[in-house]
Amino acid sequence: MSVLTVNLAENSYEIQIGSGLLPLLGQFCANVGLNSRVAVVTNPTVNAIYGSIVCSSLADAGCAVRVIEIPDGEEYKNAATLSAVYDELIEAGLDRRSFIVALGGGVVGDLAGFAAATYLRGIPFVQVPTTLLAQVDSSVGGKTAIDHPRGKNLIGAFYQPRLVLIDVETLATLPEREYRAGLAEVIKYGVAIDRPFFEYLEQHAGDIISKERGCLESMIRRCCEIKAHVVELDEKESGLRAVLNYGHTLGHAFETVAGYRELVHGEAVAIGMVLAARISAGLGHCSAADVERVAALITRLGLDVMPPQAERVSLLEAIVTDKKSRNGSISFICNQGIGNYAVEQLLPDKMLTLSGLEV
Amino acid sequence: MSVLTVNLAENSYEIQIGSGLLPLLGQFCANVGLNSRVAVVTNPTVNAIYGSIVCSSLADAGCAVRVIEIPDGEEYKNAATLSAVYDELIEAGLDRRSFIVALGGGVVGDLAGFAAATYLRGIPFVQVPTTLLAQVDSSVGGKTAIDHPRGKNLIGAFYQPRLVLIDVETLATLPEREYRAGLAEVIKYGVAIDRPFFEYLEQHAGDIISKERGCLESMIRRCCEIKAHVVELDEKESGLRAVLNYGHTLGHAFETVAGYRELVHGEAVAIGMVLAARISAGLGHCSAADVERVAALITRLGLDVMPPQAERVSLLEAIVTDKKSRNGSISFICNQGIGNYAVEQLLPDKMLTLSGLEV
Repeated sequence: MSVLTVNLAENSYEIQIGSGLLPLLGQFCANVGLNSRVAVVTNPTVNAIYGSIVCSSLADAGCAVRVIEIPDGEEYKNAATLSAVYDELIEAGLDRRSFIVALGGGVVGDLAGFAAATYLRGIPFVQVPTTLLAQVDSSVGGKTAIDHPRGKNLIGAFYQPRLVLIDVETLATLPEREYRAGLAEVIKYGVAIDRPFFEYLEQHAGDIISKERGCLESMIRRCCEIKAHVVELDEKESGLRAVLNYGHTLGHAFETVAGYRELVHGEAVAIGMVLAARISAGLGHCSAADVERVAALITRLGLDVMPPQAERVSLLEAIVTDKKSRNGSISFICNQGIGNYAVEQLLPDKMLTLSGLEV
Repeated sequence: MSVLTVNLAENSYEIQIGSGLLPLLGQFCANVGLNSRVAVVTNPTVNAIYGSIVCSSLADAGCAVRVIEIPDGEEYKNAATLSAVYDELIEAGLDRRSFIVALGGGVVGDLAGFAAATYLRGIPFVQVPTTLLAQVDSSVGGKTAIDHPRGKNLIGAFYQPRLVLIDVETLATLPEREYRAGLAEVIKYGVAIDRPFFEYLEQHAGDIISKERGCLESMIRRCCEIKAHVVELDEKESGLRAVLNYGHTLGHAFETVAGYRELVHGEAVAIGMVLAARISAGLGHCSAADVERVAALITRLGLDVMPPQAERVSLLEAIVTDKKSRNGSISFICNQGIGNYAVEQLLPDKMLTLSGLEV
């Protein structure tokens, strides 16, 4: 196992990565001073598999544990679910010394984190991500949020966890489709930031597909290192942190147009990355061979690179709404070769044209 | 006019205090880089008096202004009102470079501040308090919140404004009862923290009652100085900041038991301070003469020191719920003589006994 530190002055925290860590959660929490009352926010699926081991571990460390289940699915990452969580936190008698554990994927982490950020003006929380997407991306960096009918993540806060505990063994029970979708965010780090990591992914594609434990640990650790480094330099997303949105501008647009069930987030990002690579090539930031190489890795890791049917006007509308830019150009993250990035100001229409989409 | 700086590293900001400052709001905002889209959150009463001058000032400085009215009264500081504000912020197209102006009293400031803290994970906001209570207390220090059916301020965030603008002329239109209630928080700073300020209040009681402008400016500036200093030392209320709760433990209890309409916050705090002074005397922290002196100033400034009828069991229940302490003692702020404080761990029952309440 390994430990990473995210250095954010008084908001610094550690990420513990390894196999079989869940039974140690209570001890890790106690080590950072969290050992009183705790609410474990999770969903029924994850709770059924890992709830008892997590709760036992916390109870053994001296915590009074309350489990709060929220429904599974992005459509429940909303104000109504948040309100129900608040009610249960109050009901359970959590005070300022209590804490919240987010046990699950991105939806659980985002919502539980926002609840922690706002209950009694903020109580500590711990991320225990059980999906690949959450382990390599959403659990690190302190972005918490709920969705609004008018858009994703419109209500939220930057609020850092006190600890992140990643047990890669939880990936064994993750549905295959979700695992592959998570790989899109893994590939993202390689394409836009870290060429050696991109090459590592190419060389270890087989181990990644078969979920070889050592490979998973290395891969996830590297993703967390990269993300932690970016967040350290730009905690509140005033600049650099935007690089993490590589592949997301068009990805989000397809996610919106196709519907969140048709295309899960990572699948949409995979498509968005191939289009971003083509746009980058069109602007001279990378070669056609680089585009092919990006598409090839995505395909080898089991993700589709073909965009679903969509109307140009719907995509444009989705891009503009997502970026809250009513007119004018949008900051777009290009890959500079493989392993670096460049920011371009692009009109959405030009973006679509350069992407080679036949819409 | 005068300027105070609240020093909180990257969250530092200035408090502008003076007469006739409202027409300069737009310029002050522009000076701190806020000059794009803005939502002015206010209530119908304040909007009718000051809305147009504030909006003109912002528009003249180049802002696109949207007014968002919320209903007047603490009972509307809730999730439903917050949700309506979010909807209007989205409708108005506010993005990360936009900002919110809170124009009104504590309810407006708390709710608008929490909306600013959580909309798009936080956009800048500016406090323009128009009540004495908000000018000397709630607008400074970054506490934002909404109430929950189970308790006041249970959902919120520590989120500092980018600027506070206090125009003492707005007190001319404040209902007399609200003005006097605000004086309770003014007296609090004198009793628990600053003896020379307590003496200043004794010496200038007539000018305070008649709202002499120079006296108001001095008095409000001193309150902001004290509060800013306390907040600088303890932004997130981990210790020292609790001194600002002097008079509030029993005050809140009476507020709850009597009902928020019967006893407004400041009136409850006035009663709470007299009881706190008696408890302090009972524990040897001050003399009986000090208690008399505190009660005398409160009375001279137009506030009642007689607690309303209440049952002991109801008061105990209210204290325990408010402090989220299910069993055991509660940190209670005593005055040490006049102008200093001491913290005592007290059981609620002992608190009531020492207060001399015949309940």
